[in-house]
Amino acid sequence: MLPTIEWRDGVVRLLDQRKLPLQVSFLECKSYREVAQGIKELAIRGAPAIGIAAAMGIALGAQEIETDNFQEFYAHLDRICEHIGSTRPTAVNLFWAIERMRRVVHSLQERPVEEIKESLIEEAKKILEEDIEINRAMGRHGAKFIKDGDTILTHCNAGALATGGYGTALGVIRAAFEEGKRVRVFADETRPVLQGARLTTWELMEDNIPVTLITDNMAGYFMKKGMINLCIVGADRIAKNGDVANKIGTYSVAILAKEHNIPFFVAAPLSTIDFHIPSGKEIPIEERDPHEVIRIGDTQIAPSGVEVANPAFDVTPARYIKAIITEKGAFSPHEIWKLEGGKT
Amino acid sequence: MLPTIEWRDGVVRLLDQRKLPLQVSFLECKSYREVAQGIKELAIRGAPAIGIAAAMGIALGAQEIETDNFQEFYAHLDRICEHIGSTRPTAVNLFWAIERMRRVVHSLQERPVEEIKESLIEEAKKILEEDIEINRAMGRHGAKFIKDGDTILTHCNAGALATGGYGTALGVIRAAFEEGKRVRVFADETRPVLQGARLTTWELMEDNIPVTLITDNMAGYFMKKGMINLCIVGADRIAKNGDVANKIGTYSVAILAKEHNIPFFVAAPLSTIDFHIPSGKEIPIEERDPHEVIRIGDTQIAPSGVEVANPAFDVTPARYIKAIITEKGAFSPHEIWKLEGGKT
Repeated sequence: MLPTIEWRDGVVRLLDQRKLPLQVSFLECKSYREVAQGIKELAIRGAPAIGIAAAMGIALGAQEIETDNFQEFYAHLDRICEHIGSTRPTAVNLFWAIERMRRVVHSLQERPVEEIKESLIEEAKKILEEDIEINRAMGRHGAKFIKDGDTILTHCNAGALATGGYGTALGVIRAAFEEGKRVRVFADETRPVLQGARLTTWELMEDNIPVTLITDNMAGYFMKKGMINLCIVGADRIAKNGDVANKIGTYSVAILAKEHNIPFFVAAPLSTIDFHIPSGKEIPIEERDPHEVIRIGDTQIAPSGVEVANPAFDVTPARYIKAIITEKGAFSPHEIWKLEGGKT
Repeated sequence: MLPTIEWRDGVVRLLDQRKLPLQVSFLECKSYREVAQGIKELAIRGAPAIGIAAAMGIALGAQEIETDNFQEFYAHLDRICEHIGSTRPTAVNLFWAIERMRRVVHSLQERPVEEIKESLIEEAKKILEEDIEINRAMGRHGAKFIKDGDTILTHCNAGALATGGYGTALGVIRAAFEEGKRVRVFADETRPVLQGARLTTWELMEDNIPVTLITDNMAGYFMKKGMINLCIVGADRIAKNGDVANKIGTYSVAILAKEHNIPFFVAAPLSTIDFHIPSGKEIPIEERDPHEVIRIGDTQIAPSGVEVANPAFDVTPARYIKAIITEKGAFSPHEIWKLEGGKT
């Protein structure tokens, strides 16, 4: 797989996911504002990948600050963090990464600014490396739920492209596949931005993992036919009570799974759990541009002037979730509050 | 509203629904093969409209037969009926209309062929006129389920465009609106062919009925927020036990409605009930071209060579349906077998 994001010679290089699967191209961000724009416009997306991009954006922004004075440096960096934090409200990894980068600055406030700048680059790179390791650990813990011959439904893209590499939900599927289990993935296309059609199919085909593309409204049909054994998705933010915010449509998949007695799993790193939020009710839901719904490529698919709703996420209550698979193992959603303090 | 279909000077004129909403244009069919192609390629769609088109296609085909001999005429017409019947397997109105046209021929077999040809044109026109009347009756019976201030979710297009005029599910909504009730419609976009985004929004906006377009995977989100009071859809075929085949995704909407205690209604004429079929299991489900999923307009949205499933319909079991609204009144789906024999 191509790297989703990397730090290369003072440039943050993103695989531009808006162009996939028809075009493989890279967005070379030379300023933190370009990184922030890349996050906002979905050149990079997926909660863990957004976290990495935010960290690299901050590291890049730090290099742009021309001062030796810590207070000046910190005030400027604060504005950079604010700007990057304003891009996407739901994915908590964004705020987790910003907080982690701030902690680096605080811990080094007695040191020269140049050293802090270097340390921020190192921290951002470390977040990327750790993320890949975390995904592999999640894969090991989650693969045991997948049996030889299973067909697995997934929604949106929680793969290598949504992370530093390997993936959360798709990481679990990859791990099962690497263990020699024969699996097939049904990928919901995931309107409006089509991450399933464009990204999940693409990365699974790259790895020769069998995949069938369906529209979002077909999931129930295939469940009723007995063709889906398991559902697994990623997460954008998990509340302390185990409620999970994820791509719009996840909640519907969870209800369909319950109705057909199909287990529904969430795979996410601890950095996606927001222990400050007691339940899913408090998770802010991003409302995106109506044009995502009414235009696909160059084609307008609805009358001009039509009223559109475009919430980007929904919340699946904990009771619909069989287990949340993390790098520390798989847990009942009702138990994840116990993981507080285990965050890096 | 513009007419969905009409017989005009020996030509079957269809409002070309593939081009809506961006372009209002008509397909002028001068032969039964053109009508059949229009049905197959979705220039006209929706079970009742398909029935009308089939009848008009047969009437048109009859005019093309050059013989005075009844046996020759009948043999030729039989092939025309076969051809038209091969276009779409699920919508039973197609077969109902063909059967009704055949009955006209049988009843007139002692009469001159020219007279039979004329009678077939009259019968096709009558089917169109009756359909509009039936929709208005359905509207009257169904409107009582809609309260002032309701927001109603619908899937696909069961409107004027799916019928001779007025609509089945949208006919019920229109009737409530005409009674002065303030209603809002949430229209599922209905992938892959986007009948909701393209057609339902368009015809409701033409009538100034408030409508909000959503993607199919948003329905659960708005139900959970308490924003949907009622669901109503059309049908392509209803089995004797009340199971309903309708556009893919209908089954999922019905499950979501059940989970949120929202009543789920089906509006369909008696001609959509197939009393020969004991349950939904026996309803053939049309599998359509994968390109409907992977291309939208000129835009390819998935990798070349991806495996795709594209069932056009699903079956909603009777137990999810509060009532089936017909021109004879609203009935529990478990009671509709009693309507056998009431068919025109």
